[in-house]
Amino acid sequence: MKRREIRSDIAWATPSQISIHGLDLCKEIVGKIDLGQMAFLQVFGRLPAENENRMFNAMMVILIEHGITPSSLATRMTYCGAPEAVQAAVAAGLLGLGSVFVGSLDNAARMLQEALPDQNASVDLDALAVKIVTDFRARREIIPGIGHPFHKPIDPRTPALFQVAEETGFRGPYTSLMEKIGAEATRQAGRPLPVNVTGAMAAVASQFGLPWRICRGLAVAGRAIGLVGHIIEEMRQPMAEELYYRIEHEATAHARPAE
Amino acid sequence: MKRREIRSDIAWATPSQISIHGLDLCKEIVGKIDLGQMAFLQVFGRLPAENENRMFNAMMVILIEHGITPSSLATRMTYCGAPEAVQAAVAAGLLGLGSVFVGSLDNAARMLQEALPDQNASVDLDALAVKIVTDFRARREIIPGIGHPFHKPIDPRTPALFQVAEETGFRGPYTSLMEKIGAEATRQAGRPLPVNVTGAMAAVASQFGLPWRICRGLAVAGRAIGLVGHIIEEMRQPMAEELYYRIEHEATAHARPAE
Amino acid sequence: MKRREIRSDIAWATPSQISIHGLDLCKEIVGKIDLGQMAFLQVFGRLPAENENRMFNAMMVILIEHGITPSSLATRMTYCGAPEAVQAAVAAGLLGLGSVFVGSLDNAARMLQEALPDQNASVDLDALAVKIVTDFRARREIIPGIGHPFHKPIDPRTPALFQVAEETGFRGPYTSLMEKIGAEATRQAGRPLPVNVTGAMAAVASQFGLPWRICRGLAVAGRAIGLVGHIIEEMRQPMAEELYYRIEHEATAHARPAE
Amino acid sequence: MKRREIRSDIAWATPSQISIHGLDLCKEIVGKIDLGQMAFLQVFGRLPAENENRMFNAMMVILIEHGITPSSLATRMTYCGAPEAVQAAVAAGLLGLGSVFVGSLDNAARMLQEALPDQNASVDLDALAVKIVTDFRARREIIPGIGHPFHKPIDPRTPALFQVAEETGFRGPYTSLMEKIGAEATRQAGRPLPVNVTGAMAAVASQFGLPWRICRGLAVAGRAIGLVGHIIEEMRQPMAEELYYRIEHEATAHARPAE
Repeated sequence: MKRREIRSDIAWATPSQISIHGLDLCKEIVGKIDLGQMAFLQVFGRLPAENENRMFNAMMVILIEHGITPSSLATRMTYCGAPEAVQAAVAAGLLGLGSVFVGSLDNAARMLQEALPDQNASVDLDALAVKIVTDFRARREIIPGIGHPFHKPIDPRTPALFQVAEETGFRGPYTSLMEKIGAEATRQAGRPLPVNVTGAMAAVASQFGLPWRICRGLAVAGRAIGLVGHIIEEMRQPMAEELYYRIEHEATAHARPAE
Repeated sequence: MKRREIRSDIAWATPSQISIHGLDLCKEIVGKIDLGQMAFLQVFGRLPAENENRMFNAMMVILIEHGITPSSLATRMTYCGAPEAVQAAVAAGLLGLGSVFVGSLDNAARMLQEALPDQNASVDLDALAVKIVTDFRARREIIPGIGHPFHKPIDPRTPALFQVAEETGFRGPYTSLMEKIGAEATRQAGRPLPVNVTGAMAAVASQFGLPWRICRGLAVAGRAIGLVGHIIEEMRQPMAEELYYRIEHEATAHARPAE
Repeated sequence: MKRREIRSDIAWATPSQISIHGLDLCKEIVGKIDLGQMAFLQVFGRLPAENENRMFNAMMVILIEHGITPSSLATRMTYCGAPEAVQAAVAAGLLGLGSVFVGSLDNAARMLQEALPDQNASVDLDALAVKIVTDFRARREIIPGIGHPFHKPIDPRTPALFQVAEETGFRGPYTSLMEKIGAEATRQAGRPLPVNVTGAMAAVASQFGLPWRICRGLAVAGRAIGLVGHIIEEMRQPMAEELYYRIEHEATAHARPAE
Repeated sequence: MKRREIRSDIAWATPSQISIHGLDLCKEIVGKIDLGQMAFLQVFGRLPAENENRMFNAMMVILIEHGITPSSLATRMTYCGAPEAVQAAVAAGLLGLGSVFVGSLDNAARMLQEALPDQNASVDLDALAVKIVTDFRARREIIPGIGHPFHKPIDPRTPALFQVAEETGFRGPYTSLMEKIGAEATRQAGRPLPVNVTGAMAAVASQFGLPWRICRGLAVAGRAIGLVGHIIEEMRQPMAEELYYRIEHEATAHARPAE
């Protein structure tokens, strides 16, 4: 009962050959291209130019490791119960990369891309920034990509990423618009709301032409690498069992009878 | 009710600074090191030398993309039901990277590392290979890392990876032992059982000093990148709904009354 | 560095006693209450009255098994790769219970609960239904809980569930409002859009006072039981490997060279 | 490129009818059978007799709620990052139900079923228990299903479950063998090692004829219900953010410079 053909253009294999996005795995990939280029190939279906490669890698390395977070704790808790299923521990840590932490990346990219669907269009970016900020504030919604509760007064990752954008030709309408949104929000709110790392990454991803719906995917893939680092540390220097013990003890102290 | 200190040495942050394995994220990582080096840093806690970097990247790029597999199908099925939760779609595809497909990597690395705990020990590798093969066959267990049901007569990824090992100084006792196991198994079984990609990777990972328990982690992290590629394709050119329709139709045809 | 106390009121244990929502597990739960009552206890923090019990069970049993779906296929695909990690196979099948399939349950409950925050308020339900339908149509949004692409002209589960609601005293403002929404949508669209199972369950859950944000949780818990059934069948009568083989073959046929 | 038929015998649907294991969902399930019977139906493919129903429910209710555990903490951590994806929070909590906590259930059932493949065989259970205990001790492996680090001197759930087994006719060779293993282990070890809840459940599951490979599935399905309870509490009375804050603070204090 076929209704449509099933088709994938990513990869194929014969007994003697494996092709990924048109490249021969054994002759053109292994030993020839590196992990960053391979990730670019998976996302864009082609190899990066040199400047694209440097920019893409700069973005990806920021996504790998965020220290002790709810995500790395979920991985460690899972590893503690199922050390034989490392894949499950990584997956558990990825599952919380949702609206609260990583979602702001999609939201910022969406804001930029919906406001400026064509980056080559001739648009007054100052006026656009005023409109975006005014609209978000009118709807009492948080503007994604600006301000940071901890990295104050500025998020140090933003200038680092924008510096690479400068050097690789990735400054453009989206990075400008993002900065103008930060400046206008600062003006309207009367307190510093500079572009944070999420806003900077969303702007660069938009310059790359990445649809906002896939931005979270990059964050998820990057974090998978970081979570493996947490598993390695948890193997050698575990914290999950101690945490569980302490938390259970404190959380039930009010109810538990002395025995 | 503390019993032990909780401690992580991976990363720390202050409002103005972020440190990962002792490197300053903004000054020493972003724009300076690439995704492959960053992954190495997460796994080994230090940056790679040039030859280590080339070898590590060669291993990682093989792990990214394996085409239409149960893993990428689980990702596509999950994306079809929860397109707003890209992290869940990636996680679903990782969860099946267990004993059947990726487990052979741990198993091969374990076989090598348990047989040869110290790669600098003076050991007769030929005799060791005979013992390993004989023991596996006596237990009627499959020897991991040799033979391939599809890539016959040889797995083309093995010579590609071993060539890089040759060029980077990563040939050593584990790659030799793995090859000797393949040769001995071929002799005992009376049919070709050359080293497959899993065996080759397990040998290289062992040369790197990676404990076998963490080998699966590398495969899982790599595959997360590949699964993002499948989500991107599923967004543009979906197959999950068509598959579900066809499979449901065929699977219940014998029971469903005509209506 | 405590800022707040950590507290859980669900359960506590001493060496000789385990308490769950104030009931002694060994004396008041095991052998005394059944799975449906236990699930009610977990959700509401108390045991159900008889009519509540019958209504709650009627709702839960609908959620268990939906046959071959993207969800059960993700479970089977995962089991095929990691048969030793049954927990991962169940989890993979749950992950796609998102906006497309199960999200309509939350959406319908949200629609009802936001329109009628207090079910005891004196409100003209007919006028409310007209407003809801008109607003959704003006925003060109799909109205959740009505119509069904397959179960036509009516979803047979709706009268079955509403019959139990009738018999147990669970007909009320939310079930009425849901039916009026279906009738009004039918009128405005000019084609039959009766209440589907999702709308019926959302209405009953709202009668129970369940916040819409947790409705998906019931569906997820129920489906976990169903997915175990699929794993049992996949153990005995596997389909995942055959599917993977077929799909890979068809999906890459256009690209793969003859060999 | 079909090689085999794809077939599922669990459920089918027509526009007007839904059948699950041969029962009409709308006429024979909704309002007629409860959640415990439905779970039994999924696992055994038929409805339970009255004694089976009581025994099965007694086993299932024990599996639902275990308080603050690594599993419920993984769920809460995930919910904190992705509150919109309740399915992901439940899944994250299930993923750690592996070898350390729930695996002992499969292991105990496996031990019993491999020692006594046919429960009707005429076997000297005392001698069998001695052999099992002696063999485990010779291999320096932990004997599953006996002793408990917290519930001492006895696990109070064991007599509760065995009492129901007594009342429902579920005492038999496996419950006897399990008790004899506990007694023999106590004798050989010279310290009390009575049957714990895991051993009791494994024995009852074996009396039901459940293959050991599926025992973990029951635990996973039960826990999914419990994890929904933790999500409900986390919504109202969150702990994840406070925990993350505290743990990050303590874990990095040794490395973080004062600022």
